[in-house]
Amino acid sequence: MDVALTENAAGRDVPTRINGQDAIPFMGVGKYRPRGHKAAPSIRTCADYPDDGNKTAADLRTALKNAGLADGMTVSTHHHFRNGDILGNAVFEAAASLGVKDLRWFPSAAFPCHAPIIDHLKSGVVHHIEGSMNGPLGDYCSTGQMQGMGVLRSHGGRWQAVQDGDVHIDIAVIAAPTADPFGNANGVTGPSACGLLGFALVDSMYADHSIVVTDNLVPFPCIPWQIQGNNIDQVVVMDSIGDPSKIVSGTTQLTKSPDRLLIAEMTARFIRDAGILADGFSFQAGAGGTALAIAIFLKDMMIEAGIKSRFIRGGSTKYLVEMLEQGLTDYILDGQTFDLDGVRSMRENPCHQDTSPFTSYNYHGKGCFASMLDATILGATEVDVDFNANVVTHSDGRLLHGIGGWQNCLFGKCVILPIPSVRDRIPVIVDRVTTLCGPGDLIDVVVTERGIAINPRRQDLLDAVKGTCLPIRPIQEIKTEVEQICGGKPQLPKLGEKVVAAIKWVDGTVIDCVRAVGG
Amino acid sequence: MDVALTENAAGRDVPTRINGQDAIPFMGVGKYRPRGHKAAPSIRTCADYPDDGNKTAADLRTALKNAGLADGMTVSTHHHFRNGDILGNAVFEAAASLGVKDLRWFPSAAFPCHAPIIDHLKSGVVHHIEGSMNGPLGDYCSTGQMQGMGVLRSHGGRWQAVQDGDVHIDIAVIAAPTADPFGNANGVTGPSACGLLGFALVDSMYADHSIVVTDNLVPFPCIPWQIQGNNIDQVVVMDSIGDPSKIVSGTTQLTKSPDRLLIAEMTARFIRDAGILADGFSFQAGAGGTALAIAIFLKDMMIEAGIKSRFIRGGSTKYLVEMLEQGLTDYILDGQTFDLDGVRSMRENPCHQDTSPFTSYNYHGKGCFASMLDATILGATEVDVDFNANVVTHSDGRLLHGIGGWQNCLFGKCVILPIPSVRDRIPVIVDRVTTLCGPGDLIDVVVTERGIAINPRRQDLLDAVKGTCLPIRPIQEIKTEVEQICGGKPQLPKLGEKVVAAIKWVDGTVIDCVRAVGG
Repeated sequence: MDVALTENAAGRDVPTRINGQDAIPFMGVGKYRPRGHKAAPSIRTCADYPDDGNKTAADLRTALKNAGLADGMTVSTHHHFRNGDILGNAVFEAAASLGVKDLRWFPSAAFPCHAPIIDHLKSGVVHHIEGSMNGPLGDYCSTGQMQGMGVLRSHGGRWQAVQDGDVHIDIAVIAAPTADPFGNANGVTGPSACGLLGFALVDSMYADHSIVVTDNLVPFPCIPWQIQGNNIDQVVVMDSIGDPSKIVSGTTQLTKSPDRLLIAEMTARFIRDAGILADGFSFQAGAGGTALAIAIFLKDMMIEAGIKSRFIRGGSTKYLVEMLEQGLTDYILDGQTFDLDGVRSMRENPCHQDTSPFTSYNYHGKGCFASMLDATILGATEVDVDFNANVVTHSDGRLLHGIGGWQNCLFGKCVILPIPSVRDRIPVIVDRVTTLCGPGDLIDVVVTERGIAINPRRQDLLDAVKGTCLPIRPIQEIKTEVEQICGGKPQLPKLGEKVVAAIKWVDGTVIDCVRAVGG
Repeated sequence: MDVALTENAAGRDVPTRINGQDAIPFMGVGKYRPRGHKAAPSIRTCADYPDDGNKTAADLRTALKNAGLADGMTVSTHHHFRNGDILGNAVFEAAASLGVKDLRWFPSAAFPCHAPIIDHLKSGVVHHIEGSMNGPLGDYCSTGQMQGMGVLRSHGGRWQAVQDGDVHIDIAVIAAPTADPFGNANGVTGPSACGLLGFALVDSMYADHSIVVTDNLVPFPCIPWQIQGNNIDQVVVMDSIGDPSKIVSGTTQLTKSPDRLLIAEMTARFIRDAGILADGFSFQAGAGGTALAIAIFLKDMMIEAGIKSRFIRGGSTKYLVEMLEQGLTDYILDGQTFDLDGVRSMRENPCHQDTSPFTSYNYHGKGCFASMLDATILGATEVDVDFNANVVTHSDGRLLHGIGGWQNCLFGKCVILPIPSVRDRIPVIVDRVTTLCGPGDLIDVVVTERGIAINPRRQDLLDAVKGTCLPIRPIQEIKTEVEQICGGKPQLPKLGEKVVAAIKWVDGTVIDCVRAVGG
């Protein structure tokens, strides 16, 4: 794939066309001004839908056929089952059996369980994937074998892309732990309860044709109706749509590493000593092992100081649920449940509110919640001395992670990256990140086991921690120290010219791209 | 106003243009096929909204000015406060003080409390009203003095009109019993709690500019968020936005009239004896005095037969709430709370689900709930021998009522009109209804104190009640009997040529129009 490249405002060469569509290079944070109107779905009429509300179809293959699945269409799925999803593979098996080719798969994220899609990429059933490709699919994309270019978007960017008409979904297939024959659906009840269905909301609203697939059909009405049947065309019942026990991935286990515990403790202390930990404050921690430890440290500090949070943003885990149940926060605003305690709490507790990328992350709305967080804690694979960060590729150049809500969360009031300074003997603080996912303008603090670096742009934070015993150090100093220990700067990855994936910014512009590994 | 008229499929002369826009004559139930795409609001960017989520403006006048209120704009409000609304009048007082003219007021309904708007119609601040005009405003419209033509739509038709782009709202002003500075809002909490805000949902989604007005500002997040701040531009705090005690109107008192109690009992018996009263059945009764009595009779029959309903559609009242709390129904699906017990129940009981015209009534969606009701009980001012019915004008031709959800509910499986055969010595069953609101094709049963008439199109119902002791009679026979008692047919109203209001069908076509009274 030969594509023309142009240098964007972040100094990255990015493609000007992606899969046949013009692309806008990143122009700087808040610089690109969208024009025009939101995507406008076709007007339907009740005259074309059954009066009794029964939209059930015989099976998934029949439903896809009814929906008019054809070559080149865009088919979407959601990832609330994470690595326990069954439906994603079933959709493309059915598509293959219907002899359809060149589909664009538009998942909210793909996981290792979706490795079978590689065969569909090879056979031509799937042309390319637009969405986070965690693990094997990302690795496959990195080799340059995917026919089209991968496109990675944040959760908010995915909403933006559909809302703005950048991506038109022909057929949305929505795994639903409970649904009624009209298509109302939720994720909090039923044997496969996975929490919520927020990632599929935009699909249900904007797709030409939406299919709800459930293993727990109940009589109308399915309450709550996180997905509304008035947006749904067909309902399919399958024996199983996903394994909710697998929404708990390895990343939602509390860290036992002494280094990471140290980082977690320093992060919590920073939040406290910088004065962010105050009555009514809010934070988002995420579900990595270090993030969970931070939440626990914060919790102890809150109890000690008699402080209550107004809201905590999930990805929820049992640790956040405990804080809600112990009265340490008024609300959890939750975009995805990361364990079964999160699912239970969302089902039972009205103060555990499900959200969608619209409420939380969509940059092309009348505001979103991400910018209201007092403290936002995020991960990164690499960070440079200007605080630019990478979250999708490893230092060897392989694309192994999705963006998730990471880019959206950068708009929080204080964005903190607690990261080890070294991974597998490779320094994490680099001269230039392999892939730019987040501009340094938006990243305020990097916490490593060797000290805390504050972005010089945040003089207010530098002032706030003056006189505390926090180990504040210039990022360049930490970097130099780590390079001395590791015997030099990390080796640059061997990358080819071929662009295998584009990284979108929250406004739909292209902030960077990923090259094929191995040349 | 001279307008060209054409005869529609129901044999009614209707205007071909309404307030400068082309209008489509009614083509028959389910016959008009919509084309094109839904209305597409402008794409916004978070860069234009405050990062901290604080969208509060100093006062309503300032907010309207900020919103760019200008001559000829369309301004919308909702009617969840019914006759206790304060905001509607405040909006047009502020508009008048800003010197703005020729506004189109697009309320979900207007009530007697909005009589002050007549002055704004006279002064030219308001050009005309599109929405139900209950009482004085309807009466004023009937005189032919309103500059533009009134347009009456059902609740579902209002959603359809905005969604389809028939009506573009420039500024939506949304009274909210609780809101946060970001614009999230609900109707279930706060001192003015009125239940829900479903009628304002479409406004919040499609208006260019949306203003939430509250008398109970809480810190972010306002949960539940029936209205989402991501659709809101400004938030205004006022001392009081409405008097929730006045959502209880005279029509929500149980009837004491022996005739009406008889009608109510016959209606309930019909539902039972026709076999509709079965486990898992559903019904919608409404809030009129007779309707409430029907609900109570049904309740007794359900207890007697050991029957549980799957869902009851509100307008909720304490009678429906009792049924929910006593386990006689799994759910109340509620479009508007008609008393404070309804408000409390919706706040406290997850099985008391708030709905919107999108879920319940929008004919231009992928189905809606109205058609799934087993028994739908509605009122009417007149009905003819072909079961066509009127719900907006009196027999003297005056426009005194709105359509509400009435037209939408006609799609229920068994639509029953329990009405007295005589009102104020005037027969209610007529040769030709003054204003056609609902086609006889969709009306199945008329229950009067003189007997029950079943639409001959419903042979299944005629069969179902064979052998029961229900007083089934041809509608013509009841009509003749009433005319004999009243001394003849009702006098035809004296109407002028001038068309003062158009009546839209659920699909946006024009089913009839209203002429000026007095010639």
